[in-house]
Amino acid sequence: MPSLDELTISTIRGLSVDAVSAANSGHPGAPLGLAPAAHVVWQKMKFNPKDPNWINRDRFVLSNGHACALLYSLLVLYKFELTVDDLKQFRQLGFKTPGHPEATDTAGVEVTTGPLGQGISNAVGIAIAQKQFAATYNKPDITLSDSYVYTFVGDGCLMEGVSSETSSLAGHLQLNNLIAFWDDNRISIDGDTAVSFTENVPDRYRAYGWNVLEVPDANTNIEAIAAAVDEAKKSTDKPTLIRLVTTIGYGSLKQGSHDVHGSPLKPDDIKQLKKSWGFKEDVDFFIPEEVSEYLAKHVSENQKVQKEWEAKLAEYKKKYPTEGAEIQRRLDGKLPEGWKEYLPKYTPADKPLATRKLSENVINALHGKIPEFIGGSADLTGSNLTRAEGSVDFQPPSTGLGNYDGVYIRYGVREHGMGAIMNGIAAFGANYKNYGGTFLNFVSYAAGALRLSALSHHPVIWVATHDSIGLGEDGPTHQPIETLAHFRAIPNLSVWRPADGNEVSAAYAAAIESTSHPSVIALTRQNLPQLEGSSIENALKGGYTLVKKDNPDVIIVSSGSEVSISVAASEELAKQGVKANVVSLPDFFTFDQQSDEYRLSVLPDGVPILSVEVMSTFGWSKYSHEQFGLNRFGASGKAADLYKYFEFTPEGIAERAQKTIKYYEGKQLLSPLDRAF
Amino acid sequence: MPSLDELTISTIRGLSVDAVSAANSGHPGAPLGLAPAAHVVWQKMKFNPKDPNWINRDRFVLSNGHACALLYSLLVLYKFELTVDDLKQFRQLGFKTPGHPEATDTAGVEVTTGPLGQGISNAVGIAIAQKQFAATYNKPDITLSDSYVYTFVGDGCLMEGVSSETSSLAGHLQLNNLIAFWDDNRISIDGDTAVSFTENVPDRYRAYGWNVLEVPDANTNIEAIAAAVDEAKKSTDKPTLIRLVTTIGYGSLKQGSHDVHGSPLKPDDIKQLKKSWGFKEDVDFFIPEEVSEYLAKHVSENQKVQKEWEAKLAEYKKKYPTEGAEIQRRLDGKLPEGWKEYLPKYTPADKPLATRKLSENVINALHGKIPEFIGGSADLTGSNLTRAEGSVDFQPPSTGLGNYDGVYIRYGVREHGMGAIMNGIAAFGANYKNYGGTFLNFVSYAAGALRLSALSHHPVIWVATHDSIGLGEDGPTHQPIETLAHFRAIPNLSVWRPADGNEVSAAYAAAIESTSHPSVIALTRQNLPQLEGSSIENALKGGYTLVKKDNPDVIIVSSGSEVSISVAASEELAKQGVKANVVSLPDFFTFDQQSDEYRLSVLPDGVPILSVEVMSTFGWSKYSHEQFGLNRFGASGKAADLYKYFEFTPEGIAERAQKTIKYYEGKQLLSPLDRAF
Repeated sequence: MPSLDELTISTIRGLSVDAVSAANSGHPGAPLGLAPAAHVVWQKMKFNPKDPNWINRDRFVLSNGHACALLYSLLVLYKFELTVDDLKQFRQLGFKTPGHPEATDTAGVEVTTGPLGQGISNAVGIAIAQKQFAATYNKPDITLSDSYVYTFVGDGCLMEGVSSETSSLAGHLQLNNLIAFWDDNRISIDGDTAVSFTENVPDRYRAYGWNVLEVPDANTNIEAIAAAVDEAKKSTDKPTLIRLVTTIGYGSLKQGSHDVHGSPLKPDDIKQLKKSWGFKEDVDFFIPEEVSEYLAKHVSENQKVQKEWEAKLAEYKKKYPTEGAEIQRRLDGKLPEGWKEYLPKYTPADKPLATRKLSENVINALHGKIPEFIGGSADLTGSNLTRAEGSVDFQPPSTGLGNYDGVYIRYGVREHGMGAIMNGIAAFGANYKNYGGTFLNFVSYAAGALRLSALSHHPVIWVATHDSIGLGEDGPTHQPIETLAHFRAIPNLSVWRPADGNEVSAAYAAAIESTSHPSVIALTRQNLPQLEGSSIENALKGGYTLVKKDNPDVIIVSSGSEVSISVAASEELAKQGVKANVVSLPDFFTFDQQSDEYRLSVLPDGVPILSVEVMSTFGWSKYSHEQFGLNRFGASGKAADLYKYFEFTPEGIAERAQKTIKYYEGKQLLSPLDRAF
Repeated sequence: MPSLDELTISTIRGLSVDAVSAANSGHPGAPLGLAPAAHVVWQKMKFNPKDPNWINRDRFVLSNGHACALLYSLLVLYKFELTVDDLKQFRQLGFKTPGHPEATDTAGVEVTTGPLGQGISNAVGIAIAQKQFAATYNKPDITLSDSYVYTFVGDGCLMEGVSSETSSLAGHLQLNNLIAFWDDNRISIDGDTAVSFTENVPDRYRAYGWNVLEVPDANTNIEAIAAAVDEAKKSTDKPTLIRLVTTIGYGSLKQGSHDVHGSPLKPDDIKQLKKSWGFKEDVDFFIPEEVSEYLAKHVSENQKVQKEWEAKLAEYKKKYPTEGAEIQRRLDGKLPEGWKEYLPKYTPADKPLATRKLSENVINALHGKIPEFIGGSADLTGSNLTRAEGSVDFQPPSTGLGNYDGVYIRYGVREHGMGAIMNGIAAFGANYKNYGGTFLNFVSYAAGALRLSALSHHPVIWVATHDSIGLGEDGPTHQPIETLAHFRAIPNLSVWRPADGNEVSAAYAAAIESTSHPSVIALTRQNLPQLEGSSIENALKGGYTLVKKDNPDVIIVSSGSEVSISVAASEELAKQGVKANVVSLPDFFTFDQQSDEYRLSVLPDGVPILSVEVMSTFGWSKYSHEQFGLNRFGASGKAADLYKYFEFTPEGIAERAQKTIKYYEGKQLLSPLDRAF
C-alpha cells in the first residue's frame, strides 16, 4: 500500500502526464522528476486557494515554467480556481492552462515564467518585498509578515546570466526567506548538460553567500526533501539552494533522457507508469478520493492560519492605527489620498534643468509620502539621480549600510536582474510601485524582463536617463538609437519621454497610478527649459499641442529634448512667414488611448506633419508624414557639437519643415491617424 | 632614478590623466590603477603596430571600456595609427579617441567596449576562434596559431550576467589561451562595492573551472604581475583569472574613492601626481625619449617575430598547399569560389517545409564547403536545426565530446553570452562567419550584444527560429511581437524574414557575404509552401513583387509565413473582382539599399498598400498605407487556431484589403517611399 504522500505524488505525476498527452504538446519530464519535491513544499507552504492573494501566503515560483503541467496539477488538486477540465485543455486557446504559466490568467500562478532565469529572479524580488514589508510593519509584539518564497529552478535557469545577477544580489542581501530548489537532472534540450554546463553550481552559490543543501535521491526520498526545507528555514542570514538530484521523466521508459523533456510520452509508457503507481492503466486525470481529502485537510488548516492572521491584523489596527490604516490602504490597492498634490509644477520662469534632475525632484517630493514607492539603480545612483534625499538603503542591518525597511536598493551593475527583481517586487502585492534606474541604452540589457513586465501587467517604472546623443562624450556605445522604437512596439508599455518638469511630473503621475502596465521614463542628461504651455494635465493625455497657430502650415511633433528646439524652430519659421504648430508627444501609449476626436484635433487632416526626435525614425510615420531623426549610430563628442553636427537645431528643423510644406503643397493630405480599418 | 618600467608606467598614467583633463570628461581612476598591469601585459604581448591585423598577434581587450584613456595611451606609445594629437582631442567629435573604444574607428582596438560585461565575453569568443583556427590548421611540425587573449575586467563587468554566462562556458571549454585580469579596486559608481557586490569572485571563478591567481599589490608590484602572467601561460586546460588588488586613481589625492572614477582630476592633483613621477608639473602629454625607445625595442622584436611567422607561413604553404591556400583565402577575406552554387533552390513543386528546416538545408549544404562558417545554438539544437549532419562539436578533446577543430558550439542556455561570443569570433579575423541559434524571442536577451554587432560591423548571423505566434502552444512568453520592430530599428542590421526556401537561401547568401553588418534570420516553426515567383536573385533585393497584376487595385506587402497567406488572399480577392499584387519584403535593410526606381516599381504611387505581418505593425507605415498586424501579446494554442483567431487567413486579409481599397477610393495616393527630404 502506498502512503498518502506517495499516492499524492503519483496523482500529481499522472495529471501532469495526462495533460501533456491530451495537448499532444508540452513537457512531461520535469513534472515526473519534481513531483515529490513539489508535494513536500506545498505541504510545508501556507496559502489559501480561496484567497490566493492573501498577503502573508508563502509563494511558489516555477522558474522552469515549461514544467507548468506540474503547477497546474497542484492548483487543481488544491482546488484553486483551476479544474480538471482546464487540465484537459492544456495549452489550448482560451483556457487558463497556457503553455507557460501566466500570472494574469491563472489564480495561484505567482509570476509569469517560461523565459529561463526570470522566475528565480522574480523570487528574489518577492523575497526583497517581503523583507521590506515585514521590516516596515512588523512590531515586536505582532508579526504580520513572515512568509517564504520557494522556487523550482532548472539547469537552464542557472545558465542564464540574469539568475547569476540576482543570485549574487540575494546572497549580498542575506535573503533567508528565499529557498530555491535546483532540479539537477543533468538534462537540457541539447542532451546531457555535460556538453556545456560543467561548472560546480553548489560552489558557485556558496561563493554568492548562499546556504547549499543536497538531496541526492530526490526522486523518492521525501523525508530528505522535507528535512532540507526545515534546515533551510533555520538559516538566519542566507538564502538556500537545495540541490535535488532527480531523474528527468522518472519512471518513464525513457527516463533520464532528453526524449522526455519536451514531447508527450507514448501511450504504452503512460500505461506502465500508471500501473507502477497502482492506478488503472486506462483512466486519465485520475484523482483518488484520499488524495483530495488529504490535501483539503492541509487547506483547511491553512485557512485557520489565515483566520488567525486576520485576527492579528485586526488587533494590529487597534494598537497601531496609523500603520494599520496604511496597510489596509495598500492591501486595497489605493494610493494615499491627495498624493498627486506633492508633484512639482513649473512655469517658464523656472530655470532649465535636466529631466533626470526633474525626476529627482519628483522622487524627493514623494519620499515619505508613498511608503510603497521604493526603488534603486543599477550602480548609477549619482547619474540617474534616483535616491531621495535622506532615504535609507535597503540592506541587511548587519552590514551597517542600511536596514530592511530602507526604500533604496543598490542593484549593482545588473540591469537584467534589476528588471526581473522589479517584477518580483510588484508581484508580491501590497501595492508596491517600484522603480529602477539605469541609462536608457542599458534598459535593453533587461529586454527579457521588460517584456514580461508588460505581459504580466506589472506597474514597474524604469528611470532611464542619458536618453540620447545628448549624453555626449560617452559615445555611440551608450547613445540610444533604436531603443524607444523597441519599447514603443511592446504592447501594454508606457514609454514616456518628457520635455520639461511638468511632463516629468505627469509621467510619474501616470506610472504610479498604473495598476496594469509598466512604464519607461526616458530622461535627459542635459538641461532643458521649462516650456510655455506645458502642464501635468496636458501631458497626461500623452500628446498635446504646445504651440498653436491658426491654420498652421505645418505641424512639428516631437518628444523630450527636441521639443524646446522645435519650439525655437517654430519661432524661426514665423520669421520666414510660416505658421508651425508644435505638438509634444511624450507617450504614444497614453496618446493612443485618447478619443479619436481629441487625437485628430492635435494631428488633423490637411496639414503636413513632421516628426522630430534625435533617434531612429522607425514607427514615427504612425503620427507624421515626414520624419527627422537619426537612423545611424551616434558619435562621441560634446552634446552641443553633436546636436549641431546632426542638425538638430532650430535651423535644421525649420529647413526640413519648409521642405515638408513644399513637398505636400497642393497634395491631398490625410492625418496619419486616419485608418481604413 | 625610476626604472624604465616605472617611467613607462608613469608616462601611461600621465597621458591618461592629461587626456581626460583635456576633454574635461572621462575616467582617470582605472588607468591610474591599471597602468602597471597594462605595461606588463603589453610587454608580454606579441603584436605589430604597423600591421595591427596580423592573425597571430596576441589580443588585448579592455572590457572596462570607460578606462579607454589607458588603451589610447598605449596605442600612442607603441605608435599605432593614433597620435598625441588624437589624445588631445579625447572624446571629441571626429577623432579616433571616442569616449569608449570603437574597433571600427581605431586601429589596435580589438573590440568595441563600454557596455559592461561585453569585452570579457568577446575575449571568450576570440579565444574560441583561436582554438578553432589553431586546431584546424596547426600541424605537428608547424604551429601557425598560438596567440593569447588578455582582457582587463572591472567589477561592473563581473556583476553583469553576460560575463557569468561566458565565463562558465570558457571554463567548460578549457580555454587556457584566455587570461583575464580583474581590477579589484572595490569601487564602482555607487561607491564601495560593499553596497552590492560582496560575493567571493575567486571562488566563483574556481567553480567555473578557472585557474585563479592573486596579485595583492598590483599598484606597484610589476614582478608579481609578470610572474602571474607566466604562471597563467602554464595552464593547459583552464582559463586564468588574475585578481589585481589595485587602488582606483592610484597616486591621486582622491585615490581609492569614487570621486576619481568618472571625472577629471583637479589641476593641483595632476601637478602633485606629475611631481611624484619626477615629471615637470606643467608639461602635458609628456613622453620621455627613453620610454619611446624602450617600447620601440619591444615593437621591433615583435616585428621580427612576425617576420619569422611569415616565413613559417610560406613554408606551410609549400608543405600543405591545400590548407595554405585556404588560410590565405581566409586572410584575404574571400569566400571559396563558387560557394553560392551550393545553396539549395526550390520550385513550387517542392514540398512545404518550415523555414527553420530550409535553414538546416542551407547549413547542411554548406557544411565542409566553407570552413569558416561555424556556429551553434543556445541549447536549442533540435529546435533551431542548426547542426550540420556529421559535424563535430567544438569541445575540449578530453571531454570525448568533440574536438577543438569542431564547427559546432554548444552554447548552453546563454543567449546574451552567445551574442557576445559571436562578436568575439568575428573579431578574431580569418574571415569567420559565425552563427548562433535560439528562438527569435530570446534574441532579445542578447540585445546588448546584438547592437554592438551592428555598431562594430561584425557579420554574425542569428538563426532565430519560432518567429511568431506560429510557434503555437508555448504561448505569449515565447511569441515575438515587438522583436522585429526592435531589430529593424537598429542601424546596420539585416533582419531577414524569408517566406520560403529560395528566400532562406538568399538570406544566407547575403548574411555570409556581408563583411560589415550582422544579420538576424527569422524562421518559422511551421511548414510553408515553396512560392511561385520566388528566387534567390529576387529575394537578394530585399523586396520584390511576387504576384503581379496589371493596374492592381491594391498591393499586399508581407514577410515570412504571411506571404503565402497573402498570395491566397490575392486569389480570394480575384474571385471578388479585385486585382491584388503581393510583395514579399524579406529584409527592410537590403530593400532600402535598392535604387529609388526599383523600390518605386515595387511600391508605386497611386495604389493603396496594405502590410500584413503577424506581429507589431510598428514601423510598417514606412512601406504601407494600412497595416494588419498583432499589436497585442499572442496566446497559447495550436498555431492554426491562433492564425484563425487573429484572422491571419486569406479571408481575413482579403477583408482588410477591401477596406483599404474602399477607404482610399478617389483619394490621392503617394507611395510611402516618397519623401520630402
